Amino acid sequence: MEFSARQLADFLHGEVDGDPSVKVSDFSKIEEGRPGTISFLSNPRYEPYIYETQSSVVLVNRDFEPSKPVSATLVRVENAYESLAKLMTLVSGERAKPEGISQLASLHATAVTGSGCYIDSFASVAAGAVIGNNVQIHSRVSIGENVVIGNNTILYPGVVIYRDCRIGNNCVIHANAVIGADGFGFAHAEDGSYSKIPQLGNVVLEDDVEIGACTTIDRATMGSTYIRRGVKLDNLIQIAHNVEVGEDTVMAAQVGIAGSTKIGKRTMFGGQSGANGHIHIADGSILAARAVAMSAIDEPGKMWSGFPAVPLLSFQRSFIANKNLPELQKTVTQLKKQLEALEKRLSEEKK
Amino acid sequence: MEFSARQLADFLHGEVDGDPSVKVSDFSKIEEGRPGTISFLSNPRYEPYIYETQSSVVLVNRDFEPSKPVSATLVRVENAYESLAKLMTLVSGERAKPEGISQLASLHATAVTGSGCYIDSFASVAAGAVIGNNVQIHSRVSIGENVVIGNNTILYPGVVIYRDCRIGNNCVIHANAVIGADGFGFAHAEDGSYSKIPQLGNVVLEDDVEIGACTTIDRATMGSTYIRRGVKLDNLIQIAHNVEVGEDTVMAAQVGIAGSTKIGKRTMFGGQSGANGHIHIADGSILAARAVAMSAIDEPGKMWSGFPAVPLLSFQRSFIANKNLPELQKTVTQLKKQLEALEKRLSEEKK
Amino acid sequence: MEFSARQLADFLHGEVDGDPSVKVSDFSKIEEGRPGTISFLSNPRYEPYIYETQSSVVLVNRDFEPSKPVSATLVRVENAYESLAKLMTLVSGERAKPEGISQLASLHATAVTGSGCYIDSFASVAAGAVIGNNVQIHSRVSIGENVVIGNNTILYPGVVIYRDCRIGNNCVIHANAVIGADGFGFAHAEDGSYSKIPQLGNVVLEDDVEIGACTTIDRATMGSTYIRRGVKLDNLIQIAHNVEVGEDTVMAAQVGIAGSTKIGKRTMFGGQSGANGHIHIADGSILAARAVAMSAIDEPGKMWSGFPAVPLLSFQRSFIANKNLPELQKTVTQLKKQLEALEKRLSEEKK
Repeated sequence: MEFSARQLADFLHGEVDGDPSVKVSDFSKIEEGRPGTISFLSNPRYEPYIYETQSSVVLVNRDFEPSKPVSATLVRVENAYESLAKLMTLVSGERAKPEGISQLASLHATAVTGSGCYIDSFASVAAGAVIGNNVQIHSRVSIGENVVIGNNTILYPGVVIYRDCRIGNNCVIHANAVIGADGFGFAHAEDGSYSKIPQLGNVVLEDDVEIGACTTIDRATMGSTYIRRGVKLDNLIQIAHNVEVGEDTVMAAQVGIAGSTKIGKRTMFGGQSGANGHIHIADGSILAARAVAMSAIDEPGKMWSGFPAVPLLSFQRSFIANKNLPELQKTVTQLKKQLEALEKRLSEEKK
Repeated sequence: MEFSARQLADFLHGEVDGDPSVKVSDFSKIEEGRPGTISFLSNPRYEPYIYETQSSVVLVNRDFEPSKPVSATLVRVENAYESLAKLMTLVSGERAKPEGISQLASLHATAVTGSGCYIDSFASVAAGAVIGNNVQIHSRVSIGENVVIGNNTILYPGVVIYRDCRIGNNCVIHANAVIGADGFGFAHAEDGSYSKIPQLGNVVLEDDVEIGACTTIDRATMGSTYIRRGVKLDNLIQIAHNVEVGEDTVMAAQVGIAGSTKIGKRTMFGGQSGANGHIHIADGSILAARAVAMSAIDEPGKMWSGFPAVPLLSFQRSFIANKNLPELQKTVTQLKKQLEALEKRLSEEKK
Repeated sequence: MEFSARQLADFLHGEVDGDPSVKVSDFSKIEEGRPGTISFLSNPRYEPYIYETQSSVVLVNRDFEPSKPVSATLVRVENAYESLAKLMTLVSGERAKPEGISQLASLHATAVTGSGCYIDSFASVAAGAVIGNNVQIHSRVSIGENVVIGNNTILYPGVVIYRDCRIGNNCVIHANAVIGADGFGFAHAEDGSYSKIPQLGNVVLEDDVEIGACTTIDRATMGSTYIRRGVKLDNLIQIAHNVEVGEDTVMAAQVGIAGSTKIGKRTMFGGQSGANGHIHIADGSILAARAVAMSAIDEPGKMWSGFPAVPLLSFQRSFIANKNLPELQKTVTQLKKQLEALEKRLSEEKK
């Protein structure tokens, strides 16, 4: 890539504030800015860096008003973060897409692959699998029997898709994620031992889903575990059998969702949060980091925190109250003494 | 599969309540019932669905009494959940077992394999490994030097077994699980750096153990990390070096057990729970989701919750008290004022 | 290995207390001691075992004074744990290092490998990768384009290194760890959907770093995610994009660090702990198991616990106060009654 500030402003429908001829050929973070690179400023917390950055160009929101001189050329846009994303997408699209099927891959004779696919060394595609067009299957991916994969989907090295699962279009699954391992279901015998309940269902990923590295999504006991359109899951997340994750839901790393829980649309789960099994989480719910929904959340669009999760405001109140608890205890002890002293005095006066 | 309600009742030693000739060829969840399928009802929470399900047959407990009309044929059995498991096992057993050793697998000349084994493409078996009969080694499994694996064990794609580990009979290890990586042991030097302590022990999985996807069980520093007979571990669990997990213990996803801890028989660990290192957990202990045992649990068969874990009842009491804490604080402030007012009044009256 | 107690004492600069001619050929834990093995005693909690152990030799600290007779020969050294580590390192060094490049590995024509490397079956090394000397690449490792790996580094089976990442000298990366998957970055559109922000940076692991099994370290959006010299990470840890983990930091299993957080040198993170995004954690900070730093920690070298993390002492005080909370509530209710009774009495007396 190489762009002048003027070209950038034109591409992003923005305005140049400074030297329009200055050129950039790479991105950098504003706090690590180097000459010849472009940075952005969106989070106000990072504003101090704009006055010292070495970056040649900084993308800022249209309404940004510097409180000190800035040496970089500014490109003012409606939304600096979105414009950055647009620009990065442009640049990353310049990279040649890999294509072709490696001689070192193993494709079953009955597997079907679309046009423009890339299948790298030591990937294996089992009997009856159907792979769409322009799919990237990186090295050492295992695709089980009768798996169906949509168009333009990317599977990174080490991904495992168990038999019968269905992956949509435009999905991205990161390295060593596991889709469709057996749900955790056992019948408890009277002697204390457990016998396995076969997990006969599958996992369905709809379109535009992204799954992080080492995330595990278990197959349903019967029927399907559903990851709906547009869901984005970070790394090391556990989705148990028969869960449904609603459209456009995002989950940060290490979240765990127990079996048969139904999660609404556009919910957000912070890092290391979770939900109990067999419950429903309303649309638009936001679980803060570490929150665990232990019972159903019926009211949509509210924020929750803590274990068990309570409304955020209530969590914060309890947290502060809890911090003051040793103080409260002292106050109560003091009150008790005062009251006793008072009672004693009064009863003595009476005499 | 295709069964009539009559055939099902005969197989399961149950009774038909409805049309005995209706046929089913698949399973479905009662809330997603379709004609031609069989569902089950065990958890009373799901009872409302039985009055609207489209399933042709529903397995119910013998004592189930519908409170409204049910259109499905009921098959009444002693334990609907167990009967379902029995039926699913029958059906899953119909699937042909894979067999044969792929030309694309890598077996060291000194490795020994039993009869009826399946070894898929890109699996590798190192020097001195001994594999039992009817073992399934799926694609891209890595088996280290001198590993011993019992009969009928299944290793799914991407599983890694480090050198010298021992896996029992009838075990199932899901995709990308790692057995026998180095325990986390370092000596702290005076300059603040750490030097590695070699981990010379191994991991022993006894018979009938199931291990979830991306679960990691570390090898012992010396001696063995033990996973005893019948243990079932869900996904993304961490078992540190020199831990012992007692017979018939079950752990839900994302549990973490720190080094050298000894866990008794028939214990249960809820999701994201854990135990500190170098402690003992008594037989039959139940740790609720998110509980962390920070010190030894000596009394068997009790339930624990919270961090650090306390008896469940005590956790619940504290949780409720904590919720009421802001209220309590107000009460105390009010009492203080009242008391001060009273004292003031009395001292004034005295004058 | 076979050593006499005398040889051990000479090697470790220690003294023999007992029969110097007794021989050992293996290690064992003191509580599982067997004749012909050497154990060690460092943690005083394990002292009772030294009086019953069957081990032939026990390494102890020079100042250890048995309170009962010990049948094993003691070897007294300055630091029993460090001496053990030294001895184990000696023994583990006796094992032949694997060498040679498997015919079943896939190396791109433009990849460069140093001398003395081991590359096992089904490993793949992509275009432009540069591998140092004496590197061990075990079976089924995937090394992306332009990755650089230093000397003496070991990559265990199933490790995935995405394109452009840099790994230092003397690193160890355990099975199925993922280095350089995309950071979790999406722009939120007005219709509620998310669009991917390309992650154009990389991950840099400096020298002497150890990474546990199934641990995931995401590539930076731009610039680098840094794991500094000497860092040791346990299993199933999540390090998000643009994080920096300072020198000689250790993290136990299942820790999660959110994006752009900067962690100082020589910090310690207990199991299942974590840190919020965009914060700084001071040098030498210690987060107890399960602690989550939600805001910056500016003062170095302090211990923290709880969620949100507070100074350890404050956490302990709150925990105890919380345990006594139901009791406190009763006291307050009692005080209230007493006070009301008193007020009533006084107002009646007044009349």
